[in-house]
Amino acid sequence: MSNKPSIPKGTRDFSPTQMARRNYIFDTIKAVYKKYGFEQIETPAMENLSTLIGTGGDESDNLIFKILNSGDYLNKADENALATKNSNGLTRSIAEKALHYDLTVPFARYVVQNQNDITFPFRRFQIQPVWRADRPQKGRYREFYQCDADIIGSDSLLNEVDLIKIIDAVFSELFQDKLNYTISINNRKILQGIVESVGETDKFEQIVVAIDKLDKIGIDKVITELIELGIKEKACEDLMVLCSIKSVNSKLDSNFETMLEGLKHLSSEIGDTANGQKGIEELNFVFEKLKTLGIKTANLEFDPTLARGLGYYTGTIIEVKVDNFPSICGGGRYDDLTGKFGLKDVSGVGISFGADRIYDVLLDNELYPKFEGDSTQVLFTNQDPKDEECFLPMLFALREAEINAEIYPEAAKWKKQMTFVDRKNIEFVVSSNQDRELFVKKATENEKHKFSTTDELIEIIKNK
Amino acid sequence: MSNKPSIPKGTRDFSPTQMARRNYIFDTIKAVYKKYGFEQIETPAMENLSTLIGTGGDESDNLIFKILNSGDYLNKADENALATKNSNGLTRSIAEKALHYDLTVPFARYVVQNQNDITFPFRRFQIQPVWRADRPQKGRYREFYQCDADIIGSDSLLNEVDLIKIIDAVFSELFQDKLNYTISINNRKILQGIVESVGETDKFEQIVVAIDKLDKIGIDKVITELIELGIKEKACEDLMVLCSIKSVNSKLDSNFETMLEGLKHLSSEIGDTANGQKGIEELNFVFEKLKTLGIKTANLEFDPTLARGLGYYTGTIIEVKVDNFPSICGGGRYDDLTGKFGLKDVSGVGISFGADRIYDVLLDNELYPKFEGDSTQVLFTNQDPKDEECFLPMLFALREAEINAEIYPEAAKWKKQMTFVDRKNIEFVVSSNQDRELFVKKATENEKHKFSTTDELIEIIKNK
Repeated sequence: MSNKPSIPKGTRDFSPTQMARRNYIFDTIKAVYKKYGFEQIETPAMENLSTLIGTGGDESDNLIFKILNSGDYLNKADENALATKNSNGLTRSIAEKALHYDLTVPFARYVVQNQNDITFPFRRFQIQPVWRADRPQKGRYREFYQCDADIIGSDSLLNEVDLIKIIDAVFSELFQDKLNYTISINNRKILQGIVESVGETDKFEQIVVAIDKLDKIGIDKVITELIELGIKEKACEDLMVLCSIKSVNSKLDSNFETMLEGLKHLSSEIGDTANGQKGIEELNFVFEKLKTLGIKTANLEFDPTLARGLGYYTGTIIEVKVDNFPSICGGGRYDDLTGKFGLKDVSGVGISFGADRIYDVLLDNELYPKFEGDSTQVLFTNQDPKDEECFLPMLFALREAEINAEIYPEAAKWKKQMTFVDRKNIEFVVSSNQDRELFVKKATENEKHKFSTTDELIEIIKNK
Repeated sequence: MSNKPSIPKGTRDFSPTQMARRNYIFDTIKAVYKKYGFEQIETPAMENLSTLIGTGGDESDNLIFKILNSGDYLNKADENALATKNSNGLTRSIAEKALHYDLTVPFARYVVQNQNDITFPFRRFQIQPVWRADRPQKGRYREFYQCDADIIGSDSLLNEVDLIKIIDAVFSELFQDKLNYTISINNRKILQGIVESVGETDKFEQIVVAIDKLDKIGIDKVITELIELGIKEKACEDLMVLCSIKSVNSKLDSNFETMLEGLKHLSSEIGDTANGQKGIEELNFVFEKLKTLGIKTANLEFDPTLARGLGYYTGTIIEVKVDNFPSICGGGRYDDLTGKFGLKDVSGVGISFGADRIYDVLLDNELYPKFEGDSTQVLFTNQDPKDEECFLPMLFALREAEINAEIYPEAAKWKKQMTFVDRKNIEFVVSSNQDRELFVKKATENEKHKFSTTDELIEIIKNK
């Protein structure tokens, strides 16, 4: 085989530069998670297929990458499916394992499996790749990282407060107050209240799917969809009025009032619905606490249309957007995530940062710091066997002094070594002349410093 | 579904405690790699099946986990294989992708694919899970981490010196000079010289497989195997004599002489074989350099029987063992790794640390440090709505001061909160009394310190 090799569509290699940037994102998120008392876990890439299917609907099931059983897998294959060439029917008999497509389902499985060893409320974070057999397109990959934090086993709304503060802390650090981003917040119960108040409780799911599209397709098309669903015109109008009560809080803390006002307004509009007032009460608590504690750089927004699909959320719903990008972080509260695995009535709330999109946001806006100390800082050049002899002990002394260093491994032309320095972004170059005098210089400058002992060299480098 | 959930055989979940230990191992290795000028890359978990198969022989091909194509995969299935229920024959037509089973093959693919963007010699490290459809057993997993460092595009033996120094640096830090471990070193060319010197070059591979087992099955059984291969008795005896020239270097640098002596001895025994003397010359260079530079805690051993299977090694072979454990690190030089992908004559040399075995070695020997600051340091207890009000601003101030802290999210019984403190290994407990006086104490001590401002609290915690 001598074709140019390639990788599967929707997957990526990460070069050293890309890794440095990615690690910077992961490390920032990780540090904030830890400050908030979250502990890291990891689950295997492979789960039993039975653990994963049926948790997110048929559409999700099709997105799961299945792993072919080892050995003579056809031996146990479903005869019927095989005879009729029914791919869907055959899968479960030839693939018992699959790659997880998110970190939430494996976490729920972990909690149930290890419930006796876990101290609740359990604050866990998890940073791992996930796999989805999605159609690859710009910004959408088949293998990508999620950075999840969840608190499980506590109803307290203080957890919601923590998660919103975490989002503010992470993006304050990553965006350095140079980007405008908004944390939209809603509560599933408010959505229920809105639908109930217009007398269409039976069509809750369809209505939510429709109004979730307001941002994308606009009010007229949403109304058309609602009317097609059989919603009366008056109810449509009422719905649109309720949905318009969006209250943005700018970075100025004093404006928290507009969000609290928005809640109050909606509260009077939807009246005494069973769930609606409960949802408003919950968000009111969260907003009041945030008002007291303050927010660093985020814009907050109360958006009664925010639904984030029809997933497992039962309470708070959170989504973060930055100009021109799809969601970069999202989450919410779910009341029965572990039910599928036999553990009922355990409430959880969590968020997930989309590292790949954040990567692009930082790149587009030139917000990456200089990663000093991440790659080689000092190159000992090699033009002569005497260089090797003289520089080797120095090289190891520098490494002992926590300086990243290497020697060019063979005597080579100066130009070649300087190309190496340039492309590897090395900061300092050490060399000798014919009289065995030793010099060090910054790669980007011409001025050489003469030195004779290793200690002198370390001194020069550390003082830059 | 309410069966207790489980994970696939041979895979594992990692709890917070296990993650802290694993991260400690990864971070230690990573820090050393960086000091030596290595840069991190990552490749996808999924590669094209055609990239992976045929690189390690049929046995390796069977160890590869294949990923079932998405959608109606039977539509493009090999009709013949389907009709005859030939699993092996069918696989390639229904599974185009697979999980990588090591990091070396993906790295070779990466180098060829990105050759125009890479500056050679390229020092890369890679820390990722790999997957093998092996029979799971104690210490052998189907999903496990490898920590690889390779230098590609340089023949220089200084690279070998660096790699051995890296092994010494990593284990000096992890083992803290409390464990006896040995870096065994050989050179494939020496193995060739030995076999050539007894006149059995044709049977090189079989002989190497046999003498590789000397440690496991003993000299008598190896001789039996050799004789079964048709090796003459005299040649067997000569082989055994040559194989016995093992020269261990204890931690005392002065003993480097025994290894150099061993090489000299073997050199005179195998005479003027084509490859043998070249191999001896190479190892002699490496040992001389190491002698000058010194070794911290490793025992070094020249072992002319070391083969590490019949893989792709063509020069130096390295393996690290610690009492009672299988190999915890290994590697060597390979001259044509990228040939399969169309890039000829690129020499590489690398090592791989087996994180999972190192994990067990450290655990068995109680060598993990205390991971302070990794989990929650301070818990604000919650017994009263006034606690929430009073402690919330303090909680966030502590986090701003880089102290990991949390508040118990709901008012709960004291005992329940103390169990939480105990199981989460929290260091400090903050509480109030009925007069709203505030106290902080170490969780393991009884003495309480009264405080009134957040600054005082931070002061007490930072001074422990």
